[in-house]
Amino acid sequence: MAPTKKGILERLNAGEIVIGDGGFVFALEKRGYVKAGPWTPEATVTHPEAVRQLHREFLRAGANVMQAFTFYASDDKLENRGQTLKLTGAQINEAACDLAREVANEGDALVAGGVCQTPSYLSCKSEPEVKAIFKKQLDQKNNLIFLYLYFEHVEEAEWAVQVLKTSGKPVAASLCIGPEGDMHGVSPAECAVRLVKAGAQIVGVNCHFDPMTCVKAVKMMKEGVEKAGLKAQYMVQPLAYHTPDCNCQGFIDLPEFPFALEPRILTRWDMHQYAREAYNAGIRYIGGCCGYEPYHIRAVAEELAKERGFLPAASEKHGLWGSALEMHTKPWVRARARRDYWENIRPASGRPQCPSLSTPEGWGVTKGHSELVQHKEATSAQEMNRVLEMQKKAKSSA
Amino acid sequence: MAPTKKGILERLNAGEIVIGDGGFVFALEKRGYVKAGPWTPEATVTHPEAVRQLHREFLRAGANVMQAFTFYASDDKLENRGQTLKLTGAQINEAACDLAREVANEGDALVAGGVCQTPSYLSCKSEPEVKAIFKKQLDQKNNLIFLYLYFEHVEEAEWAVQVLKTSGKPVAASLCIGPEGDMHGVSPAECAVRLVKAGAQIVGVNCHFDPMTCVKAVKMMKEGVEKAGLKAQYMVQPLAYHTPDCNCQGFIDLPEFPFALEPRILTRWDMHQYAREAYNAGIRYIGGCCGYEPYHIRAVAEELAKERGFLPAASEKHGLWGSALEMHTKPWVRARARRDYWENIRPASGRPQCPSLSTPEGWGVTKGHSELVQHKEATSAQEMNRVLEMQKKAKSSA
Amino acid sequence: MAPTKKGILERLNAGEIVIGDGGFVFALEKRGYVKAGPWTPEATVTHPEAVRQLHREFLRAGANVMQAFTFYASDDKLENRGQTLKLTGAQINEAACDLAREVANEGDALVAGGVCQTPSYLSCKSEPEVKAIFKKQLDQKNNLIFLYLYFEHVEEAEWAVQVLKTSGKPVAASLCIGPEGDMHGVSPAECAVRLVKAGAQIVGVNCHFDPMTCVKAVKMMKEGVEKAGLKAQYMVQPLAYHTPDCNCQGFIDLPEFPFALEPRILTRWDMHQYAREAYNAGIRYIGGCCGYEPYHIRAVAEELAKERGFLPAASEKHGLWGSALEMHTKPWVRARARRDYWENIRPASGRPQCPSLSTPEGWGVTKGHSELVQHKEATSAQEMNRVLEMQKKAKSSA
Amino acid sequence: MAPTKKGILERLNAGEIVIGDGGFVFALEKRGYVKAGPWTPEATVTHPEAVRQLHREFLRAGANVMQAFTFYASDDKLENRGQTLKLTGAQINEAACDLAREVANEGDALVAGGVCQTPSYLSCKSEPEVKAIFKKQLDQKNNLIFLYLYFEHVEEAEWAVQVLKTSGKPVAASLCIGPEGDMHGVSPAECAVRLVKAGAQIVGVNCHFDPMTCVKAVKMMKEGVEKAGLKAQYMVQPLAYHTPDCNCQGFIDLPEFPFALEPRILTRWDMHQYAREAYNAGIRYIGGCCGYEPYHIRAVAEELAKERGFLPAASEKHGLWGSALEMHTKPWVRARARRDYWENIRPASGRPQCPSLSTPEGWGVTKGHSELVQHKEATSAQEMNRVLEMQKKAKSSA
Repeated sequence: MAPTKKGILERLNAGEIVIGDGGFVFALEKRGYVKAGPWTPEATVTHPEAVRQLHREFLRAGANVMQAFTFYASDDKLENRGQTLKLTGAQINEAACDLAREVANEGDALVAGGVCQTPSYLSCKSEPEVKAIFKKQLDQKNNLIFLYLYFEHVEEAEWAVQVLKTSGKPVAASLCIGPEGDMHGVSPAECAVRLVKAGAQIVGVNCHFDPMTCVKAVKMMKEGVEKAGLKAQYMVQPLAYHTPDCNCQGFIDLPEFPFALEPRILTRWDMHQYAREAYNAGIRYIGGCCGYEPYHIRAVAEELAKERGFLPAASEKHGLWGSALEMHTKPWVRARARRDYWENIRPASGRPQCPSLSTPEGWGVTKGHSELVQHKEATSAQEMNRVLEMQKKAKSSA
Repeated sequence: MAPTKKGILERLNAGEIVIGDGGFVFALEKRGYVKAGPWTPEATVTHPEAVRQLHREFLRAGANVMQAFTFYASDDKLENRGQTLKLTGAQINEAACDLAREVANEGDALVAGGVCQTPSYLSCKSEPEVKAIFKKQLDQKNNLIFLYLYFEHVEEAEWAVQVLKTSGKPVAASLCIGPEGDMHGVSPAECAVRLVKAGAQIVGVNCHFDPMTCVKAVKMMKEGVEKAGLKAQYMVQPLAYHTPDCNCQGFIDLPEFPFALEPRILTRWDMHQYAREAYNAGIRYIGGCCGYEPYHIRAVAEELAKERGFLPAASEKHGLWGSALEMHTKPWVRARARRDYWENIRPASGRPQCPSLSTPEGWGVTKGHSELVQHKEATSAQEMNRVLEMQKKAKSSA
Repeated sequence: MAPTKKGILERLNAGEIVIGDGGFVFALEKRGYVKAGPWTPEATVTHPEAVRQLHREFLRAGANVMQAFTFYASDDKLENRGQTLKLTGAQINEAACDLAREVANEGDALVAGGVCQTPSYLSCKSEPEVKAIFKKQLDQKNNLIFLYLYFEHVEEAEWAVQVLKTSGKPVAASLCIGPEGDMHGVSPAECAVRLVKAGAQIVGVNCHFDPMTCVKAVKMMKEGVEKAGLKAQYMVQPLAYHTPDCNCQGFIDLPEFPFALEPRILTRWDMHQYAREAYNAGIRYIGGCCGYEPYHIRAVAEELAKERGFLPAASEKHGLWGSALEMHTKPWVRARARRDYWENIRPASGRPQCPSLSTPEGWGVTKGHSELVQHKEATSAQEMNRVLEMQKKAKSSA
Repeated sequence: MAPTKKGILERLNAGEIVIGDGGFVFALEKRGYVKAGPWTPEATVTHPEAVRQLHREFLRAGANVMQAFTFYASDDKLENRGQTLKLTGAQINEAACDLAREVANEGDALVAGGVCQTPSYLSCKSEPEVKAIFKKQLDQKNNLIFLYLYFEHVEEAEWAVQVLKTSGKPVAASLCIGPEGDMHGVSPAECAVRLVKAGAQIVGVNCHFDPMTCVKAVKMMKEGVEKAGLKAQYMVQPLAYHTPDCNCQGFIDLPEFPFALEPRILTRWDMHQYAREAYNAGIRYIGGCCGYEPYHIRAVAEELAKERGFLPAASEKHGLWGSALEMHTKPWVRARARRDYWENIRPASGRPQCPSLSTPEGWGVTKGHSELVQHKEATSAQEMNRVLEMQKKAKSSA
């Protein structure tokens, strides 16, 4: 039963590792239940069995936290994105919380609910107006802790912390930033200090960058908090995509976002490296975000099995470091049933006409390329029309 | 109800497109329910909700066939692979058929059951002994059609066809071969002719190679069958991995098999190309195998929506050619809401220290490289000897 | 003295290996003496010391043949290309032959003079008209043997052989084709048979493709000649560029031609592989074409040193298989002074935003890409029309 | 005549651009006159025509400085490397200076002589002992300016400046370092300040890193010098290899050094970018080092033609931005005769089994990889021990 479970801070402060789950938006998009573009979570109401099943898979994989699938379920967002079912934020959020709690109760997991950035902030609504939206979401949720994810601006995140603190529950504040800081250039160290001062007990980053980059950003947060003489716990929930070629906006600026990211997906062995690196950095809440499948979380749990003292349930279906390949039919596949084989592999892309790195769009591109980008992307509607016009002509004359 | 549904041959002979589902082994491995190595399907008994959910997702994505998840569920295989639960092939196969039928009845889908190659054939058991195993599996299934998948040797496949024909039901015979033919070097054209002569109404290939390679092999089958003055329908169910660097054994020989194939995963746009190519080649049963997620099948269904006259259910959560990105927050992502952007994208791997192509192991590698492989494969002289011994055996048995 | 030297056929028929030199056009372009585009050899008159020096370097590297630098020095070509100095073909060709002879006499090398394809043939002049051009060039040269290089059409090459035969000297006929045959689709085997029947004693291929591809084409020639019951010697003089992504026209169709081919340049170790492969295929005249630098030819000579019984002069400045690195300052570079290090190296491109393979332009590209190419190729409607016009003409004349 | 020429400082202080030449060691290695490993310049005595010809090509390409080919020609180095001819440093250096002067007098170029780091310094000889070696070299040369190149330690470079200053001639001090500073971790800014204080009028970097990295390091030098209230001119002479994957030791640590660097060679268009970047950074002495061929220097001169007011002689054989391709035979090659085609090209490597980036050896590699490297580097335990021993020494002496 939930009441007997240790809370999130109790666990972290006792030095326990807390493993997070993975992102629902991308995983359910691939399964056919979320629409890329609006990215809203109506599936909690329309296809609860799909949401429940994904929760279960992350639980089996070793996750200690079930994040309710409430991403972008604020009313202003839902209206904005023209969903046809006319579901309210309240309906979606309540269903999300119920599903998360139901599965959490099947194991040793906590339930977390998130709030995330609002169109209202971006359109420069006032602090009271934005806070009212957070308050409304808070009232729709009944969870053990509150994460809030997908904030690009530390100021909006501070407002959210201030609202969530009124609940008396622990607050974990996560930003989707990298080592270069938030969208106004506030450094990770300063972001962390401001969030702790606003009342967050846990700070960290999620989404937007690959695991190693996110761990680096959290390290910078930790240094900032410690230098300021403050105390906090740390969390990290990165992408499951390699993003060495991102600019400060993260993977959204990559030309492959969101429909051609496949070649960047991390292997389970990349996850072992990530889990170790995060652990060594002193981070104890270690999970994932967009791109994570259950086997990615399992790999995190397997890497940290010695420290945690146990393997996750789903490891019954996985030999550590490929050891179950000893039962493969082909002898040369059996010969891969060992750690150093997988630890050193440099997997090929199978795509000889594709590069290793893209040039992210927007900032910082060289002149020659930026013309090409503008050509492709066209930053204003006018220019877009011009380009499309040219492309149309080119096709018709070809 | 199933009885009112048109049968598989009725559909194909009427010129309808039949969309297949994707492979269950790899998809459920990622979700934590199948063990790579033995690859056996106990999950039909132990985690039916997971199997059912995957069926549903493929159905929603547009699949017209639910293949019962019976891969490698012959008793000789199950014993061989030391499963702990002591489930019999009968138990697993019956549960698999029930799940497939249950979901098929939720939509316009047929149920198919497969048999696949047996350890007994590889260890040179006699024709009657091998056929007895197929007969046993047949009796455990009660389906509309019979596919059989994962046969590398046309001779064993012929024996299976002969057994399955006794049921009086349509038989679809699929081999996991590429343009170079089966493991004895029998060409795709000759394989197809032999299978049609053995009684199969549908012939094709699945698994082992990427979509374009599989379509090429089926084209060769079609030319062979037509040249022989025979008649058949054609099916193709390829990998969702790019495999330009395979040798004749397919992706099993790639160094990345099975735990580092991520960078090779096809995008949904690759699937559009594949579906069109398969359709243009005259293939009407078009599906997938290992690596397919529901969104891959949806892409096949979307590409062929005009020909079929409708979109699949899951397209409610997908804008055609990225059009739903028009609702994205960032303007430069909105600018990607168009076909030519995604059609021309060459996605980066994000892995600058990895190559585009691997050199498959085993046969056909250059001397220098094969030494390197053996070097990597064997850290001690003892293990080296084991590998060389195995490779020798593998070659002599091939 | 030249008279005492064994002739080319004497050497080849005795089973000797004859090592060719490398291409002058590309090497002298990099040194500043040849203009890419017209590609004409006025430097023999204007900068004889540069031409002489390159001959010497190839001689030192082990070449047994000095090809006079007469590429594209027919009068119709020179006029066509608007050279400013108003040098005649006669002046250029005579200077070229003198330089080649001068350096050949410094060592054990033969002099060869080439003729190559003419604008007159492409503009459909008659056989007598084209032959008159060859005859004129023949009279301008006074060499031991005649190679003719850079023919894309076997018919024009046959005419050239017939003219050159009248000199009574040995004729070596080389085409710039790959395994797919000449520009009219005549197979390498048939091309070779026709050239031998026309009177050539040596047949082979040069330019347009990388070493392994060229060796493959010559193997096909050899099989054709032997199957026809004829006899010949074989030569191969490939590019020093990797071209796995060429279509039938060769490297000219690669988007990188001619000013961005650097990443494709073969290493000296690639040359060892090539020399061995050519030798094993029974080819005894082994040289190079565009992209070759003297160290490439030296690598060929070093690989075949055991068969020839000696090392080339330039090996005094080169440790076999990197052995001179033992004298390097840094210990980890000294550790590379061994064969297996260099034999197995897979050199990185240092260009993470570039792909491994290009899609050649023109024929055979997929629809999406060809639009992209046209897009890149034509920034204005006017230019676009010019390109399309040109492509149409190119296709109809191919 | 030389006396009438403006000196190096006169030119730079007047705001003129001074174009350097390229490195002789690598260029002459490819031509067969320098041995990789010892890298010593005996060719000035044994093959003067080859050295003279390379000088001429750089002069034609636009170089204003002829660097005498004296690299590693100190007596302690020559003895160390066991050269067979027993030439003294004096003989080699005098011949080198004569050749440089001879060609410089054919155009508007200055002669420079270099000294470079000594084995004596590395083996911890005293300051007077090392300075005596520099003094000896100084007496062997009679040039207009003194560059000194290939210093990895700023302390040794300071000693050299102090010796060279005694000649009363301008001193240009160049280090082979990148943005991370010298081998003791002294930053580029501090290195520059120390060299200016020691008496150098020109400071900069050369060798070891690619152009953009070198320009970045010189910018750091410039900032340091200006911040210290000092004055200097700046020079840059980078590699012609892309080296984004180097560690602080530069290209010597790349696994491809020195015999498999081909895929990294810069195109002429990369050189345009470099020249512009260097000019914009306020650097006025712009040249090259290892990997440069004459056409690379010509590209630098062509990019800066507007600023200098003239094109180099070798541009008679080169259309600006590919314009001479208008005379090419093939229409689609003619369509490449324009700037934006070449400016935006991303050239393919033609090597699908090779990665974009290598992991440099030695420091900073991940555990898994470093084992692999050691594994490759050492096939037997004995050799392994040797390598580890050497690496330990290298690290402790660094």
